[in-house]
Amino acid sequence: MTREAVLDSRQEILRTAARLFQQRGYDATSMNDVAAALKLSKGGLYHHFQSKDEILFEIMNHAMDLTQERVLAPVGNIADPEERLRALIRLHIEVVLSPRDREITVMLHENHPLPPGLRKRINQRKKEYVHYVESLMADVQKVRRAKGSVSPRAAAFALLGMINWIYQWYKPEGNLQTNNLVPQFTEMVFGGILA
Amino acid sequence: MTREAVLDSRQEILRTAARLFQQRGYDATSMNDVAAALKLSKGGLYHHFQSKDEILFEIMNHAMDLTQERVLAPVGNIADPEERLRALIRLHIEVVLSPRDREITVMLHENHPLPPGLRKRINQRKKEYVHYVESLMADVQKVRRAKGSVSPRAAAFALLGMINWIYQWYKPEGNLQTNNLVPQFTEMVFGGILA
Repeated sequence: MTREAVLDSRQEILRTAARLFQQRGYDATSMNDVAAALKLSKGGLYHHFQSKDEILFEIMNHAMDLTQERVLAPVGNIADPEERLRALIRLHIEVVLSPRDREITVMLHENHPLPPGLRKRINQRKKEYVHYVESLMADVQKVRRAKGSVSPRAAAFALLGMINWIYQWYKPEGNLQTNNLVPQFTEMVFGGILA
Repeated sequence: MTREAVLDSRQEILRTAARLFQQRGYDATSMNDVAAALKLSKGGLYHHFQSKDEILFEIMNHAMDLTQERVLAPVGNIADPEERLRALIRLHIEVVLSPRDREITVMLHENHPLPPGLRKRINQRKKEYVHYVESLMADVQKVRRAKGSVSPRAAAFALLGMINWIYQWYKPEGNLQTNNLVPQFTEMVFGGILA
């Protein structure tokens, strides 16, 4: 197999496993279930991943890769802080609602305790994202001369809560979709519910 | 035992089970573990709860009772919509950060799939709370003559995301505590991050 084909089959395993974990729960899904859903032998699956915890970690790590590629990389090219924040809100919501990757990014919120070494690596990546958003909030508040009643850190946590919570209520057939959610959440971040 | 003593011991079981579920994960915690932590015989535990799913359901149900008693009941007495929303934000954050009940309310976000009948009952109670907040947002926007770029529903989901996400980042030793978080989140809801 080429390196691309190996990468593709790893990602297919992660996507299938993520879907099963959400449908049945992480603990109720066995390595056998994952292998069967992929029409792989158990040996074939273990060739790629040594344990279910490794699969969960790699799903979470892939979700952070997606955030890096589709949110942080593009906004890094935008000089104006306010435009950068507007782009981050839009791109982060797009990743969270992406039909292809929704099952991957949702797994960032799985409560199953990972082995300490793996948990530390994911938490480090999550922390870096929080710090990026916090520092962006500070830049926006500075150029827009905010009155100062909201700290950049509280603002960052509020924004991440608004966006990361979407998976709890989102319905593919509902009225709130990316196209109308992005402008509403953006308005709220800049002007609150009275905007 | 009096009715009060039975209620107390049920609540002690729920609180202990919630703590174990969070430390070890829901699936990794057995009924034996719960009984041992309470110094109860397995029979003593099964006298109160027939299964682990029933315990999880009752934890979630108790969390919704706390929301009813400590958020919805008190705000129901406030006539002015803006004051009612300010009180709801404060009281909801206080419930989420209550040292005594934090382990109970966090379990509302446990992803383990409950049997359909139980899941339906919890989802119904969660939905009623969302609808209450949505209708309160509409009232506030009306009296404050909001410009109309944010729908009450998107505003309700944003607020619930901000507050319910707190458990993901909150640290008892951190700088953000109830006393400074409440005014900052309130400012953001009414005026955004530039307030």
